[in-house]
Amino acid sequence: MILVGQYDSPFVRRVGITLTFYGLRFEHRPWSVWGDAERLGELNPLRRVPTLILEDQSVLVESFAIVDALDDRVGEARALLPRSGARRQEGLRLTSLASGVADKAVSLLYESLFRSQPSELWTQRCRTQIEQTLDRLERDLLEAGTDYFLGDSLSHPDIMSTCAWRFGSEAHASLFVAARWPTLAALAARCEQLPVFQAVYQPIVNNLSNG
Amino acid sequence: MILVGQYDSPFVRRVGITLTFYGLRFEHRPWSVWGDAERLGELNPLRRVPTLILEDQSVLVESFAIVDALDDRVGEARALLPRSGARRQEGLRLTSLASGVADKAVSLLYESLFRSQPSELWTQRCRTQIEQTLDRLERDLLEAGTDYFLGDSLSHPDIMSTCAWRFGSEAHASLFVAARWPTLAALAARCEQLPVFQAVYQPIVNNLSNG
Repeated sequence: MILVGQYDSPFVRRVGITLTFYGLRFEHRPWSVWGDAERLGELNPLRRVPTLILEDQSVLVESFAIVDALDDRVGEARALLPRSGARRQEGLRLTSLASGVADKAVSLLYESLFRSQPSELWTQRCRTQIEQTLDRLERDLLEAGTDYFLGDSLSHPDIMSTCAWRFGSEAHASLFVAARWPTLAALAARCEQLPVFQAVYQPIVNNLSNG
Repeated sequence: MILVGQYDSPFVRRVGITLTFYGLRFEHRPWSVWGDAERLGELNPLRRVPTLILEDQSVLVESFAIVDALDDRVGEARALLPRSGARRQEGLRLTSLASGVADKAVSLLYESLFRSQPSELWTQRCRTQIEQTLDRLERDLLEAGTDYFLGDSLSHPDIMSTCAWRFGSEAHASLFVAARWPTLAALAARCEQLPVFQAVYQPIVNNLSNG
């Protein structure tokens, strides 16, 4: 398999971590959605990352579809979420919230980078969406009372939440404040200590490639 | 269950059609992400639609997670995609492409509605993403040579593609031209004849509520 995209994208990082966690072999092509738009477009007409090329040359273009395929490939016994049932539903619910935080953190950064006149309305909306979703995730994790969102072991919402938190902390340091969401920040800090998170990481400084 | 969001959103419509197709009972709350932002925010901190409230008050906030839960609920024999295997992977691949078209069609409309100075760079990028992804879907459907993307029966990519096509045709009539993508347009026309598509529809004219 070939994973296309840079790890400064929280979504590419999520897929890279999942592949690595599962011990699946893959090549990594750290293409930028801007600088490599044309060759990326030949693979994935949406010109987004992560893009995953499978052995049969099928190209998967959306994080959830990619992760779903990887879970299926390693099988129920090793997958980070089961194929059906309450634990899956809860895991996808939490992952969607964390994914939304990452999405809005990317939008907020784009707004400041690509707009000569950033929209106050749009910017404020993004900030509210991020803050209130972090509030929700903080409460859910606190109420669970466990080390990870779904109990005592790592699962997809932990990976997505940690990737969103790291990206947000680097892109919007004044917004992603650990003191405000201490439980989420502690989860992220704990995950970032794991070898798989350390192996799959790229800071966003001066090298923005999310799309 | 309660589905929140207006059917002028291709994503809300997709979920409404899936619920109706499965014969699942639900209430519909046609809230606008703009006009009803505050009460929507209390349910879904991302303030997006579709939002689905389950019987146990769990709130699902992302189309793919919602549809995954609905598929699981009706069971393998009735679900529009199996829980695992090649057909699922291909179905999610195609659905992701169609979903990307809808996403970019919404972005393109927002750009013209909410920006005093629409970005030429952003607008052109959205148009290219839409055109090339429609090219890919057109080719995939043509090569399949079947009535629907995955054979002779309706599945998720057909619903998403039809919702994206309808929304695009109404929001960007000069871009979504049937003569350019005749196979996709014919699929959409065929689906729009089905009672379930007719039952779940709202034109976007003057009542934009996607978010």
